[in-house]
Amino acid sequence: MGAGSPDASGGRDIRDVAVVGAGLSGCLMAVLLARRGYRVRVFERRPDPRLGAGDEGRSINLGLSQRGINALRHAGLLDRVLAHAAPMRGRVVHLPDGDLGYHPYGTSDDQILRSVLRHDLNVVLLDAAESAGVALRFDARLADLDKADGAVTLRFEDGAVVEAGTVIGADGAFSTVRARMQRGEPADYHQEFLPWGYKELSIAAGAPGDRRADPESLHVWPADGGLVVAHPNADRSLTGTIFLPLTGPGGFDALRTPDAVRAMITARFPDLTGLVPDVVEQFLSQPTGHLVTVRTAPWHWRGRVVLLGDACHAVYPFYGQGMNSAFEDCVILDGCLDRNAADHAAAFAEYQAIRKADTDVLADLSAANFVELRDRLSSPLFLARKKADLALNRLLGRRWVPLYTMISHTTTPYAEALRRSRRQNATLAWLACATAAAGTLLIHRLSRQGK
Amino acid sequence: MGAGSPDASGGRDIRDVAVVGAGLSGCLMAVLLARRGYRVRVFERRPDPRLGAGDEGRSINLGLSQRGINALRHAGLLDRVLAHAAPMRGRVVHLPDGDLGYHPYGTSDDQILRSVLRHDLNVVLLDAAESAGVALRFDARLADLDKADGAVTLRFEDGAVVEAGTVIGADGAFSTVRARMQRGEPADYHQEFLPWGYKELSIAAGAPGDRRADPESLHVWPADGGLVVAHPNADRSLTGTIFLPLTGPGGFDALRTPDAVRAMITARFPDLTGLVPDVVEQFLSQPTGHLVTVRTAPWHWRGRVVLLGDACHAVYPFYGQGMNSAFEDCVILDGCLDRNAADHAAAFAEYQAIRKADTDVLADLSAANFVELRDRLSSPLFLARKKADLALNRLLGRRWVPLYTMISHTTTPYAEALRRSRRQNATLAWLACATAAAGTLLIHRLSRQGK
Repeated sequence: MGAGSPDASGGRDIRDVAVVGAGLSGCLMAVLLARRGYRVRVFERRPDPRLGAGDEGRSINLGLSQRGINALRHAGLLDRVLAHAAPMRGRVVHLPDGDLGYHPYGTSDDQILRSVLRHDLNVVLLDAAESAGVALRFDARLADLDKADGAVTLRFEDGAVVEAGTVIGADGAFSTVRARMQRGEPADYHQEFLPWGYKELSIAAGAPGDRRADPESLHVWPADGGLVVAHPNADRSLTGTIFLPLTGPGGFDALRTPDAVRAMITARFPDLTGLVPDVVEQFLSQPTGHLVTVRTAPWHWRGRVVLLGDACHAVYPFYGQGMNSAFEDCVILDGCLDRNAADHAAAFAEYQAIRKADTDVLADLSAANFVELRDRLSSPLFLARKKADLALNRLLGRRWVPLYTMISHTTTPYAEALRRSRRQNATLAWLACATAAAGTLLIHRLSRQGK
Repeated sequence: MGAGSPDASGGRDIRDVAVVGAGLSGCLMAVLLARRGYRVRVFERRPDPRLGAGDEGRSINLGLSQRGINALRHAGLLDRVLAHAAPMRGRVVHLPDGDLGYHPYGTSDDQILRSVLRHDLNVVLLDAAESAGVALRFDARLADLDKADGAVTLRFEDGAVVEAGTVIGADGAFSTVRARMQRGEPADYHQEFLPWGYKELSIAAGAPGDRRADPESLHVWPADGGLVVAHPNADRSLTGTIFLPLTGPGGFDALRTPDAVRAMITARFPDLTGLVPDVVEQFLSQPTGHLVTVRTAPWHWRGRVVLLGDACHAVYPFYGQGMNSAFEDCVILDGCLDRNAADHAAAFAEYQAIRKADTDVLADLSAANFVELRDRLSSPLFLARKKADLALNRLLGRRWVPLYTMISHTTTPYAEALRRSRRQNATLAWLACATAAAGTLLIHRLSRQGK
């Protein structure tokens, strides 16, 4: 069946696909579909990033973990991406008193994360899509989408009209495809903003051996009412993100003068002033970004439209799983298309049935990790618990895998990871009780013998 | 300060108000604002209902309870509305085996609900608004809203452009005012559809004394996988609503032939066939409505735009509080304007601060009451609990007020009502435990004496 020829239902060939959004998941899905023999066109509202256009105000440095690595391997693109990546073997915690803490990410060598610039990753994926025969159109901003059983029509702001057998919405948290697909349908939609925002900071490479800017670690500065996270780049510099409340004392709204910014940095992140001499100028010149969680259903419409990544499940960045989960979506959708090649309605329904419960859990975990990064990283009790987690993992192996490890270093479905973690915690509580009871009994016996 | 003259901030007079939506809350708020001396214009996308246009497919019969009654009294409109209303003194439950149950709504004569046609109520409110000097424009469908600090501009689909100092969005669950007000803002938005829908049924007046169509009761038919609720009209007929799952066996999607509908009615609502001889024809000719819960924040923008009723808190109809809570919004907003006459930003912030927690609780209670009406009304244990509630109320008076009574027959804020109900339940559990303990102790003593 050639692309453009009618399918069994008399409509347009379902293998004639328009992907809206040439970001990370849109490009990866385009590659996978092209390899299935589909005709694939990708439409992106921004200019071609390979032509040097900026990517300002977006989180520009991402942590690839197992799910993303697995997806890139599935698409045969892992080596090309890793050539641009910096390894992250653990987390350096910059405590407010100036001390440095360190937690390794796992107990084995494959349990490391890879830091990569969004721009580099996007270029690899765009090139791979073009090599696979995908047609890319930039500066194409979607204005409307007309649903019809036989085909879907995309209308762009420049007047272009495109008909496709299948439309994939990979156009982000404020997806136009989603809004138009769900219009007039009884669709659930939840959008929630964190009352905190963020700005980006560039941190120059440190002196060799300076652990404060270790280029093989993720860096976290937890503070009272603030948080900085930084990823290393391949050139040993770091890209940081400062998270603060949007409003109130100490929030972005109140930090509009050099004096106010300097006072806040000195009070909350003292070692940043040394690492980033121009931190005040950077802070005042960067835009403030917002953080949103999106949950919705349905993710698809009659086998003709389907959503990927942020368009159906935007999460806060605090578990580092936004890109990884979007890549995993592509692999799962690809598997559903394998099993239902002639029936996209069945494929998309299976994809949502498999995936939505997992990404709902990811949204919860990502919100909970914000609290952890903000409040607990500086707590000795919490650090002890993290160490105990890793020690139990070393001792018990696969029978004790910390939740963070399952999320970041395995492809265990998110919801299953949470269930396993809860079972492990229940077992631990039981063991603690049993130990306490046995101890009590022992003391009781010893005291009777002493009588 | 005349309408249209600039306010202190140099913008348009904040007392020059455009209300979008001439439904129940929009009209009531218009009356209250006109009485404060504001210039008020109301814009409604539908035709004037007083000119005989239909109101098809909407829930056309509503239950006024204490909050709505209080709001109408506050506006001086209660008597005019009650002239069109039918009293509902209790609930007749039509059990699947053909038996009838009856629960009075309260223990005193003022604890009754009033059933009124939405159309009649809307006409009273429109007439009252016009008498108070409000300008009404119908067939005016809002296309866009431009936010600016000095004034807000409304653009209508027919090309009309209106500038106002303050805009009130009373345009329902899918509010255009809300969407435009929140555009570009970090706004939380949650929309959730019940997997059940509804159709309306007309039930002719019964023979005098026939309890199956008692014209002074609300009627409920609980069934396995279905629910019918009917309100009486002043002419002794009833207006019913049949609620069913949208999909699956026994859902609306599967009920498209006379045979299928007849079989479903006979199995689930046997006494309806006698009461509504043309129930099958009505069922097949009525459209299926959807039910949505909406929660959102913020409810206002810089003292220039504010939302009312369904536009900021649509709830399922199962507690009968949609209209009542929307009317209560008007009274609360009116009070906030009293306390902050010159500062709408403060008034609107106070309104949301007072009100949002309450309407969030109402959304939860309305969803929980769906389960109650569907599953528990036919359970003997639940009926016993309802009777015990009323008996405790008779015995303990104000120290034991059932939750339903606080919601429907008082103006106790919704969240406070829920807290009181939880405290009462905890006390009851404590009393039950204490009684059991005392009983055990007594038995223990008696058995020792018997030794």
